[in-house]
Amino acid sequence: MRIQRPTFQRPEPPAPDGKPTRVAVTLGDPNGIGPEVVLKSLHDPSLMPSMTPVLIGSAHVLRVHADVLGFSDLDIHVVDDVPDDVPHGDVAVLDVAEDTEPPVMFGTVTAEGGRLAMRAVERAIEECQAGTVDAMTTAPISKDAIQQAGYDVPGHTEFVARKTDSPRPTMMMVAGGLRVGLVTSHVPLSEVPASITEEAILEKLRVIDASLRDDFAIEQPKIAVFGLNPHAGEGGTFGPEEEEVIVPALRAAQQEGFRVEGPLAADGFFGTQLDSDFDAALAMYHDQGLVPFKALAFDHGVNFTAGLPIVRTSPDHGTAHGIAGKGMALPGSMRNALEVAVAVARHRRQKAEPAA
Amino acid sequence: MRIQRPTFQRPEPPAPDGKPTRVAVTLGDPNGIGPEVVLKSLHDPSLMPSMTPVLIGSAHVLRVHADVLGFSDLDIHVVDDVPDDVPHGDVAVLDVAEDTEPPVMFGTVTAEGGRLAMRAVERAIEECQAGTVDAMTTAPISKDAIQQAGYDVPGHTEFVARKTDSPRPTMMMVAGGLRVGLVTSHVPLSEVPASITEEAILEKLRVIDASLRDDFAIEQPKIAVFGLNPHAGEGGTFGPEEEEVIVPALRAAQQEGFRVEGPLAADGFFGTQLDSDFDAALAMYHDQGLVPFKALAFDHGVNFTAGLPIVRTSPDHGTAHGIAGKGMALPGSMRNALEVAVAVARHRRQKAEPAA
Repeated sequence: MRIQRPTFQRPEPPAPDGKPTRVAVTLGDPNGIGPEVVLKSLHDPSLMPSMTPVLIGSAHVLRVHADVLGFSDLDIHVVDDVPDDVPHGDVAVLDVAEDTEPPVMFGTVTAEGGRLAMRAVERAIEECQAGTVDAMTTAPISKDAIQQAGYDVPGHTEFVARKTDSPRPTMMMVAGGLRVGLVTSHVPLSEVPASITEEAILEKLRVIDASLRDDFAIEQPKIAVFGLNPHAGEGGTFGPEEEEVIVPALRAAQQEGFRVEGPLAADGFFGTQLDSDFDAALAMYHDQGLVPFKALAFDHGVNFTAGLPIVRTSPDHGTAHGIAGKGMALPGSMRNALEVAVAVARHRRQKAEPAA
Repeated sequence: MRIQRPTFQRPEPPAPDGKPTRVAVTLGDPNGIGPEVVLKSLHDPSLMPSMTPVLIGSAHVLRVHADVLGFSDLDIHVVDDVPDDVPHGDVAVLDVAEDTEPPVMFGTVTAEGGRLAMRAVERAIEECQAGTVDAMTTAPISKDAIQQAGYDVPGHTEFVARKTDSPRPTMMMVAGGLRVGLVTSHVPLSEVPASITEEAILEKLRVIDASLRDDFAIEQPKIAVFGLNPHAGEGGTFGPEEEEVIVPALRAAQQEGFRVEGPLAADGFFGTQLDSDFDAALAMYHDQGLVPFKALAFDHGVNFTAGLPIVRTSPDHGTAHGIAGKGMALPGSMRNALEVAVAVARHRRQKAEPAA
């Protein structure tokens, strides 16, 4: 039976100075669904109008995807620099393929695809750092492809963190007012308990609290912290980590002035809609946080990297090579990633220039 | 932000012989929300009409709860035996308090409450075994209270399994067509990886497959099996258990004729609505399965114990002592538990007597 998933409120912070907010949009792996969801998002009449998207990748690749989608009348402009504004419906591309026509091989992992995807990411970071754009949104890359291309990073988050000298990038999944962070992420389950330390929890709470204030304009953020074990350990019956690690971390966080509660049982938290009482939840490991998030946020989820000097978002899905080139990909997550990027950029600007 | 949760289709299998299906309903801990959600469910005009609920517990306790709810005109009949039929709206109670008036102390754990709750469960099992009822639905008990009362079991599932000599009781969470089972449940997270064995997975698959056929009348059930590690191990990068344990278990299951797929990443499964392609999912541990289930099934979730000779369901929540006696408890999960009990009992009867 198909379950009707919830829908989520989309952000609409006003542009502080009336100017459109510029977002660099990298096209991701040319052989995946990245270019498709970007094109569909820009085509979506409900897309927040006061933003200027600037695509970064290959104009040729974009045209191949546009043809597949039947977007034949699409006006694709190749630009050398970020324009001040792009008319709604037009598509401006900073072409990083240097007049070549990179092949598109739907569903195939290629080093060439990986190289093209990462060149776009590098350029987007540079534009953010130069201040020519206000934020960047990244379409999915193929981890295998970028490693074949010689990039020794697991993904965008680590790459952007390295390029911007950010020691504590923190993934935050966002769908409307539902925000979920993780203490550990790509760690084998058997190594999770030892990775849950008081300092690791505190560090994440600091980044998330600051991000909720600065990036989401929440004045007194309230954060739920999950337990590690079933039923948050049930008073020690199902494991000692709650009493030994999580409770002391929460006490330290409260002493630092954070509004945190826990350790809470994750199933009870979502099962009693406690999520509506908190601005974010901190899960202890990958599946504890991401499985309920994706179950609820289907086609709405945004991956936001907190703790960076620049603003970076992405959809919460991968390259989906299996359905690439078929026109089947749902663009909601990418559209929301663009809108969250704009919202965060505006909140940061407002915080930095309260007079404006 | 409050997230709009999905709603689920409720079961409506016809009564094979036109006779109403009798369900023994135990009232659970007298100091929790059990009697409240039972009364509200029976009061719900949308409750499946062709069932005969027979409450088991204390009529006095039931009256105290009815008064709190303002159900003052409720007709509570004390019966000595299970009646053939109960008029819709009437309430029949098998009183196991033996003419005493057990105290109701909302939100308090008492040995007396534990004893009363378990006496009702024992009676319900006896009625199921005697064939005077077709199924039993249990309102939540307090684990502390029953242990104070001298019952050395963690909960209903183990107690019913012991009383019915069932070696392999298997919790299945049910909400419409969403069904989730677990390989391990109340185990500290650090002990989960060692508890995931080929035989443990196979055993659960056998019970779930049989239950989908016999209890849910699905002819060719299709079961998804999750990985243990993030991204189902991502080809060994995030842990070896998928290749070493889960893949061999799946291969053995396929050789036994089961339609199983996996190991699947749990976040991708729910995030791409793959749940609509499968009749059940088998999660490796508590939070991996129950957190997304409860996130989606809010106020709809039913706990069904597969692998028993009798039919037993319960709501997916606990005694909720914190809101007991306040009239705030949502009855959807209890109402659905009654209806799933009826559906399973009818499917089993149809299977046993195909001529009827």
